[in-house]
Order: sequence, then structure tokens, then C-alpha cells
Amino acid sequence: MTTAAPTLKTSIAYPKGQITLREVGLRDGLQMVDKFPSTQGKLDWLALEYAAGMRHFELGTFLPTDRYPMFGDLELLIAKAMEYPDLHGAALVPNKRGAMDAFASGVSELHCVISASEEHNQANLNRSCADSLTEIRQIIELRNSRHPETTIGVGIAMSFGCSISGEVAPNLVLTLAENLYEIGADIVSLADTVGYAGPKQVEHLAREMYSLASGRPFGIHLHDTRGLGLANASAALGQGVSMLDASLGGLGGCPAAPKATGNIVMEDLVFLCQTAGFDTGIDLEKLLLTREVLKREMPAQPLYGALAMAGLPKIGNTVANT
Amino acid sequence: MTTAAPTLKTSIAYPKGQITLREVGLRDGLQMVDKFPSTQGKLDWLALEYAAGMRHFELGTFLPTDRYPMFGDLELLIAKAMEYPDLHGAALVPNKRGAMDAFASGVSELHCVISASEEHNQANLNRSCADSLTEIRQIIELRNSRHPETTIGVGIAMSFGCSISGEVAPNLVLTLAENLYEIGADIVSLADTVGYAGPKQVEHLAREMYSLASGRPFGIHLHDTRGLGLANASAALGQGVSMLDASLGGLGGCPAAPKATGNIVMEDLVFLCQTAGFDTGIDLEKLLLTREVLKREMPAQPLYGALAMAGLPKIGNTVANT
Repeated sequence: MTTAAPTLKTSIAYPKGQITLREVGLRDGLQMVDKFPSTQGKLDWLALEYAAGMRHFELGTFLPTDRYPMFGDLELLIAKAMEYPDLHGAALVPNKRGAMDAFASGVSELHCVISASEEHNQANLNRSCADSLTEIRQIIELRNSRHPETTIGVGIAMSFGCSISGEVAPNLVLTLAENLYEIGADIVSLADTVGYAGPKQVEHLAREMYSLASGRPFGIHLHDTRGLGLANASAALGQGVSMLDASLGGLGGCPAAPKATGNIVMEDLVFLCQTAGFDTGIDLEKLLLTREVLKREMPAQPLYGALAMAGLPKIGNTVANT
Repeated sequence: MTTAAPTLKTSIAYPKGQITLREVGLRDGLQMVDKFPSTQGKLDWLALEYAAGMRHFELGTFLPTDRYPMFGDLELLIAKAMEYPDLHGAALVPNKRGAMDAFASGVSELHCVISASEEHNQANLNRSCADSLTEIRQIIELRNSRHPETTIGVGIAMSFGCSISGEVAPNLVLTLAENLYEIGADIVSLADTVGYAGPKQVEHLAREMYSLASGRPFGIHLHDTRGLGLANASAALGQGVSMLDASLGGLGGCPAAPKATGNIVMEDLVFLCQTAGFDTGIDLEKLLLTREVLKREMPAQPLYGALAMAGLPKIGNTVANT
């Protein structure tokens, strides 16, 4: 099958040597909530966060909308989001059927998922890791032949330990990542799905990923389940990670711990990046104002974030001291 | 004046190459609260946290008890705490008068304070940095001549930026730290009093401190005001810091941001240390149970901590993966 090389598009989406922050609140943030924002609320959220400088959004999951009503407006949301110049929108696709819908929607990126642990892959996707890999390969072939403009990202769930099977060998994760690049994934992300990672572990895996990716982008998807989310993000930043996921107000939860916090807080992550000298292109004051949409749309939802409570430091440039 | 060398005692309190975690909730955690624990509540807290393996406690401040009633039982608390074998108790002394009381109390360590910023030193201690340095020298001379068994620690407030004067030059902090070691301080701690620090900055200053301390212990006192507390702790751990302060449930606040969170959360810090391969000697399950005392004694007080909500990972040893 002849294929158009999609590398140019990916390199625009994930510029080399630059940190990309991705808002996953509209997907990962909503997956477990009872009450979710109206379509207009989602569009307001998108508009305000775009105005604050955010360019990467995960917009939803292509799942049956009777069971996942929070994603019932996904096609509309994608269509509206794709009208913004430079906006890179991703949708999670759990299977080939979802991928077909996603390709048709015109979203910039399909985000496929596979687990580093056989037990979790079965529990989450109801199939073996080998079957998931085959399906991802088929989705990539479809992209190559018919949708060369679409980026394919793959997230490896439970990369830092699994709440079902326990420890996950780093080499297993790295070998899987290598396979995924080989079959044509544009970006591979390691996900700490249940918040088991510590910074040493992140540092180690990110360093290895940087080496094996050889210039291709790679991401780290962190949760703040056990409080180490930003410490882990800081470790990943030090090892050349291309993309970090987070959500406004830390929206989201943990499938394995009902009372736990969710994704790392975008506002605090932007502050972290700034103190470390990374230009994220995001205006923190405007980003903080975007929380008002969540408060309005989901008043019962706890919002996290230390910066929102404390305010920005009264200092010109926190980087100057380093 | 002839002096007994106090180095042996200090080296026992802060063993070389080992991380010491210090519970500062009984001091820094209570300084700003309206309702504080009863004396029995403080003793229960101490007993349970000691049973969990904690050996370093900051027990209070020697301040006028009419204005600071939360420290009204400090002498009694010190007397009881000093009955535990291996317990190293510290008391904050804002001036020479407090130091006299502290020496008389039999507490293991006097913790003196000076600010890296002239403006904050005036606002906090009502005198110039030069005058504070003179007073600390006098306290150390008193220790040398009459209380050689007492450790002297000094904390440099606003080491990472000042909420009054803005940026603080790292060289100013390092020169002050060097002076303090030279006049006989056993341990010097850099305090991020208002939560301005980022991990790059902590990494830089901790590396320089490790070098200038030449084997003497040094500490980093962090607040989680802007969410980077554990990321900063992780950076400090990587640079050989001897002691990190934290409080159970993140008790405490920020003098410059009334709504903000306080000290870094001890429970999450212990978890961070474990994932990084540091043996803290602390039993996390028992430490988490100690929160019940705070809930009972200060029911209206918000308690922080992700681990307390999420629980420990279902995995034998999170270090094995690194």
C-alpha cells in the first residue's frame, strides 16, 4: 500500500525541543463525572483556554453515547474546535469503529490506547494486548492510505505500575513503545493511569524514551492521585519530554481510587514550566479565569489547584533566580 | 571563651547521607490557626507520629503566650517530648529572650530565623538583618559556653524570593548561609516562606549549599503554596539535602496569601522519598492514621494530602521499577 508520509504534520503539532501542554479535561476530565458541561459550556471552555494560549486539546472519546452521554456532542465539538487556527484536537479511539468515526470527524489526531499490562488491557478494552496492537496497526494503515493528514498518537496505559497486576517492567513498556513507533505511531505517550509513578521512575523511563524515540515526539500522561504529579512532570521536563497532559482545575478522577484526585492541574503545571524556563505560550492569568466556566457548568465538582488559591508570585520573572 | 565542640551531637541528629524528615506541624502548622489542639491532643499527635517512626519535631515557638496561645504549653510539650528516646525536638526562637527560655527548657535544638530580604526581616522581626545576625551569634556563643549539648539551627526565610521585595539573589542567600556556618550554626535551612520556588531554582541552590556546607547538614523548608512543594522536594533530594520539613495533612498557611495551602504534606513527602529509594524509617500506614488526631482536635481545619484520599499503591515496592 502506498502511503503519504505524515511526518510533516506531526512535526508541526509537536515542534522539536519545545514542550507542548495538552488540555485533556474535555476527555479524561469528564470520563467519570455525573454532571458534565453543556455543549455551550464546552465551547466556552475551549474558547477561553484557546484565548489563554492553549493549542492542544483532547476533545472526547468515540464511545457509545448512550453509555457515555458526556461525549454525545463530540462531533459537533470537533467541528467547532477545528475552526480555530492552529488548534490541534485529539479524540480517543478505543477501537477501529471509533477510529472510523474519528477519521470522518476531521479531528487532527486519533489517540489510541493499549495497556502495558495484559490484565488491565483485558479489563479496560476486553481484548489481549496482541489484539490491541493488531487493531492499532490496522488504524495506522487506514490513516496511511486514506487520511495521511491525520496524526496517530498512542498512549500506553499503566506504564508505571498497574492497579490490577502490580509492577510493570520498564523494558516491557519500552519495547512496546518501540513497536508502536515502528508500525507508524507519530507520538507515543506513557500514562501513569493510577498515579503510581515517582520522579525517579519517570526520569528513568523518560530518558529511555527520549533515546529510543530518536527525535520523534513522546508524551507523559500523569495523574496526581498520590500527590507526585508535578514532581513527576518536573522529572519528565528534565528529560526532554515533548508533551505533557493536564486538565484545568485537575478535573478527572482515578478509576482505581474513587475518592482520589485526577489529572495534574494545568494551571500549576504551566507555573512549573515557567519556573523551569519553558515558554508554554500560555497566559496564566487568562488560564485561571477559564476556571469560571467549570464553576458555572459543574458547581458541585471540586476544583483543584494551588495557584488558583494563592495567586501568582509578586515577582517579575521567577526564572531569573535559577 | 572555651567551647565544647557540639559537632558530635549534630552528626547524630542529622546523619550524613541520610534524609531527615521533620514534622513542623506543631509549630509552623499552628502559627496561623484560630483553633489549636489541646495539650493532650498535641501529646497524642506526638505519640502516634513517633510510633510511626518520626524522630524530628519542631515543637513550637518561644513567643509571648498572650498573643500566641497555641504555644502556651510549649515547655510542657518539650518536657514530655524529651522523654522519648531518640526524639530530636526543636523550638523556634525569634530572639535572645526566647533563646534563654529554650535553653532552660532542655529542647534538643534552637531554631533561629533570619531573612534573606532586609524588608522581610524588618517586617517579621522588627530589626535589620545585621542585628539579627549579631543576635544569632550571641545565642551561639551562649550555647558554646553554657549549653554545648544543644544544636543550633538557622532558617533563612525568603531564600527563594520575597513577597515584599521580590527577587532574592542566590549569592546573597549563599553568602549568608556561609556566614552562619562560620559563626557556628550546626544546620542552615533555606526556606521558601511564601512558595515562590520552582524545582530548577531549588536544584541550583541545594547544589551550591551541598558544596559550601562541606559535609555539614543543610535543610530545605518548603511550602506548597503554588503547588510545586513536592516537585521542589524532589529536586532537593537529588542534590543531597539533609533535612526536609513538612507537616501532617499540610497543616499551616502562608502569611502572604490567606487562602493558600501551607507546608508540604508529610504523608505525600514520605511516599515521594520511598519512590526515590530513600529509607525514611517511617511507616506510612501508621502515619496516615495520625491524621485522626488532627480531625478530632481541629474538625474545621482542612487537611490536605493526596495519599490519604487515594491510599497506597497496590504494589510491593515502588522503588523496584526505577
